[in-house]
Amino acid sequence: MSAIFKNRVRNKILLNKLVENPLEIVKTHFRDKQHIGFSGFTGIGGPKVIPNALCEYTRHHHLNMPGSEKQMRFNLYVGASCGVEEDKMALENMILKRTPHQVGKQIRKRINSGDTLFFDKNLSLFPQELLYGFYNKDLTLPDPNKTDALPSNVLDIAVIEATGIDEDGGIILGPSVGATPEFLAGASKIIIEVNTTIKEMKGLHDLVLQKNPPYRQPLNYTKVDQRLGSEKLYIDLNKVVAVVESQIEDHIPDNTPADENSAKIASHLITFFKNEVKHNRMPKNLLPLQSGIGNVANSVIGGLANSGFKNLQVFTEVFQDSFLDLFANGSLDVASSTSIRLTPKGMSRLSQNWDSWSKKIILRPQTVSNNPELIRRLGCIAMNTPVEVDIYGHANSTCVLGSKMLNGIGGSREFLTSAKYSIMHTISTRPTPTDPYGITSIVPFVSHVDQTEHDIDAFVTEQGLADLRGLAPRERALEIINKCAHPVYRPILLKYFNDSIKRCNGKMHEPHDLHKCFEMYFNLEERGSMRAFKKTDEKLH
Amino acid sequence: MSAIFKNRVRNKILLNKLVENPLEIVKTHFRDKQHIGFSGFTGIGGPKVIPNALCEYTRHHHLNMPGSEKQMRFNLYVGASCGVEEDKMALENMILKRTPHQVGKQIRKRINSGDTLFFDKNLSLFPQELLYGFYNKDLTLPDPNKTDALPSNVLDIAVIEATGIDEDGGIILGPSVGATPEFLAGASKIIIEVNTTIKEMKGLHDLVLQKNPPYRQPLNYTKVDQRLGSEKLYIDLNKVVAVVESQIEDHIPDNTPADENSAKIASHLITFFKNEVKHNRMPKNLLPLQSGIGNVANSVIGGLANSGFKNLQVFTEVFQDSFLDLFANGSLDVASSTSIRLTPKGMSRLSQNWDSWSKKIILRPQTVSNNPELIRRLGCIAMNTPVEVDIYGHANSTCVLGSKMLNGIGGSREFLTSAKYSIMHTISTRPTPTDPYGITSIVPFVSHVDQTEHDIDAFVTEQGLADLRGLAPRERALEIINKCAHPVYRPILLKYFNDSIKRCNGKMHEPHDLHKCFEMYFNLEERGSMRAFKKTDEKLH
Repeated sequence: MSAIFKNRVRNKILLNKLVENPLEIVKTHFRDKQHIGFSGFTGIGGPKVIPNALCEYTRHHHLNMPGSEKQMRFNLYVGASCGVEEDKMALENMILKRTPHQVGKQIRKRINSGDTLFFDKNLSLFPQELLYGFYNKDLTLPDPNKTDALPSNVLDIAVIEATGIDEDGGIILGPSVGATPEFLAGASKIIIEVNTTIKEMKGLHDLVLQKNPPYRQPLNYTKVDQRLGSEKLYIDLNKVVAVVESQIEDHIPDNTPADENSAKIASHLITFFKNEVKHNRMPKNLLPLQSGIGNVANSVIGGLANSGFKNLQVFTEVFQDSFLDLFANGSLDVASSTSIRLTPKGMSRLSQNWDSWSKKIILRPQTVSNNPELIRRLGCIAMNTPVEVDIYGHANSTCVLGSKMLNGIGGSREFLTSAKYSIMHTISTRPTPTDPYGITSIVPFVSHVDQTEHDIDAFVTEQGLADLRGLAPRERALEIINKCAHPVYRPILLKYFNDSIKRCNGKMHEPHDLHKCFEMYFNLEERGSMRAFKKTDEKLH
Repeated sequence: MSAIFKNRVRNKILLNKLVENPLEIVKTHFRDKQHIGFSGFTGIGGPKVIPNALCEYTRHHHLNMPGSEKQMRFNLYVGASCGVEEDKMALENMILKRTPHQVGKQIRKRINSGDTLFFDKNLSLFPQELLYGFYNKDLTLPDPNKTDALPSNVLDIAVIEATGIDEDGGIILGPSVGATPEFLAGASKIIIEVNTTIKEMKGLHDLVLQKNPPYRQPLNYTKVDQRLGSEKLYIDLNKVVAVVESQIEDHIPDNTPADENSAKIASHLITFFKNEVKHNRMPKNLLPLQSGIGNVANSVIGGLANSGFKNLQVFTEVFQDSFLDLFANGSLDVASSTSIRLTPKGMSRLSQNWDSWSKKIILRPQTVSNNPELIRRLGCIAMNTPVEVDIYGHANSTCVLGSKMLNGIGGSREFLTSAKYSIMHTISTRPTPTDPYGITSIVPFVSHVDQTEHDIDAFVTEQGLADLRGLAPRERALEIINKCAHPVYRPILLKYFNDSIKRCNGKMHEPHDLHKCFEMYFNLEERGSMRAFKKTDEKLH
């Protein structure tokens, strides 16, 4: 037991539950087909010691081998995505079933090879459905006619990372909250990894655990900076079967620097925001911002930092490096999220300014950070990146070519369905080996629908911004094609649209030709470009 | 002025605004391309005198004729759908643009012929987007940096039906609320039709008008029978330009009697509910019920009336005849909706029991009745009928063959996205002229997506109930095909599924063959049956 560990675990009962050898924990508590919950959100704050021990145990005992009857595979739940440790488990084929979101080369490979069953779920809904008993239907829950108690048997084991435990037994979480409150409430057994390599993050969290209906109460937030929850998590200490020390750090890769195209997208958005303010559709300090992960999202926030807006507020699921610039120039008043996902550089920047900046950061459970009730009430500006959108405003956020899972729906759906401003942004084309414009982000009919035409207010590419508010489908098609599609795809998309109109006599609401709507994908498959690229065309561009 | 009218309009200022000749109102206030709001929801409580006068005026002056420059066409907003009067306007081609939902032969025809632009919107979101100024972007709104006032210029005219006006100027609405509160707040001019043929419905309404963000407050309902709003609507009386008497009744057609198949669907659902209660996933009195419109929905409620459940609660958008049976046998404690859509028979039944039954009915604005915040908190059981669903659980609620608009998304999306139990139900097949099973409700890939795989917990046909909770896409496909598809389509759907798996090496999350996923529609188009029906097959069934 390290001195720092003893210092961090100030509750005697839990300190006595220290187990030095994680393999012992694995051997004692883990069994094939269990339902397991891991803390963590977007690769931050997940357990590390136990997943590593699970992998070691599995390898050592030759489990999960093709043809072998000896299995140790789990129904694994993580708030959103775990870190590299989950990917190691995927490599050992330990994940039987997984929800609601994942990031990692190995886990994605297992899902798309058919080894791992995966279903993606809206991130604020997922922990509640788990506590409804929806994912393990053989269980009997506490009688709702007699008690408002949540079930404590929907998970066999919850494994969570903390940064400290107070004398009163209150758990001090780390840089992510995710679904940890629901996992701890819903698990029969709890294992706590206390990470001593990172700061004890007391004071950052605002933790609320809602009851199931008919006992659920309003989330009475009307401002981003309101705190209505507790700083620490209180749990049934009897359920804790082991406490371990972790000295393994999270690994967040560096961000790609903003490129010209994402800067253009940011600039279109800022022009749009300024016009909204001009017409008094938004206050001068805008409305609470939600921003997805990725290059474009980072650029947009970067653009905001240099555009003169003041007193901005962020209500999002992930706090990222780009927000630090807004803290640095004083334009961001408060940032609410469920995860601080900072690169090592970003984390050290935050550490240097901890006393002033950490006061402006609030970490909430994903049931709160992503809750439609609050997103709608606060009137958020939601900005996310799709795989592709179609001419009528449906978007695909998850399945490439209709079938291949990327990461899952994440928070994009709950934010875009409930926000006042629902915005999607992406670069209009991407290269293939044979065509620099081989893939268009704007297609006639998306191969998978996650966000529908009813959700999206604006769509932005480096070409421009399509303002879809109040437009009927045929108007939307022209707006999207003319403002957002890359010039090499405009004539192709217009031709599809006009041909479909001719075909759709008497069904002109949203003209489609189901015989031709997927042709671009077939071109890509057969000729390496969605525009049926031929060598001779190249000279044109 | 009739005696009863004078008795109903007890406010002197408004009584003085009586205009006897509605054509005068039309001539004075209505102009081409205005933004007009009509009260009404599901064909109930809409204005009648003014729409009829608008039609007369249009016909008389030969407006909107092909090639003519003389136009009188409107951007028309109705909470959901108006009655026959709107259809008369559609016949005169008076509707330039329409949102968020419509029902009627003529209006649908205009939309699908391309004469009328239509966009369907989630019903609780629509009135709020109108007050955001999203549908008329040239306007400048009140400065949100200085005031929480809602704009009063987003509509040129609101025309609403009322059943009375109190001395204090409070408007007593009739059998629907819909978007009337937002229309009256957002209009420059107001015209009130006081309908003297129906009962003055004082005491039925619970009216809340929310502010725009950043001023919006929680909807603090935690129970269906809570009343947090006012009984009457208070408006700026200066905006009222005319009050007229209406003696025209609403026309609701009789319901089709329940058939064997819809009774089977009801029975599957009741078995499902009983199992949920058994496992304590629901209390004995279930959770607040939302039920769509139509034959199947009616059957389900009818089935509930005979299944021994007590103390039921309804939180829905439309109160229909079938609920009266629940009142009659004492099993329904309270019904919240935004419209009482009763057949003449149902209305007279309610009238006979008015004193006891009306106390259990609460009419709310559609921003409340359909609000995701409340649907999620109360944990509703949402049940709606789609056009079709696909094997992975996506549903089409609006566009036949991807293009032809039926009625619009209505409340189905907000309820299904937010409910604890999101259920869709439909008959598994429908006949075509040449095949008694020519159309299947379960297809490989829906031709339009309104509800996604992330929304639906259970799907029910007369064949059975598919419980999709916690299932990954490939599991869902088998559950839906085996439990819900009609036996004549099961092998065809299974073949599609298995062939797609073979095709989707490395993209096995949601296997599809985009070359073949729409083949059933082509069969229908070319051969009159989705199963490529040939005469010789007929003997088999």
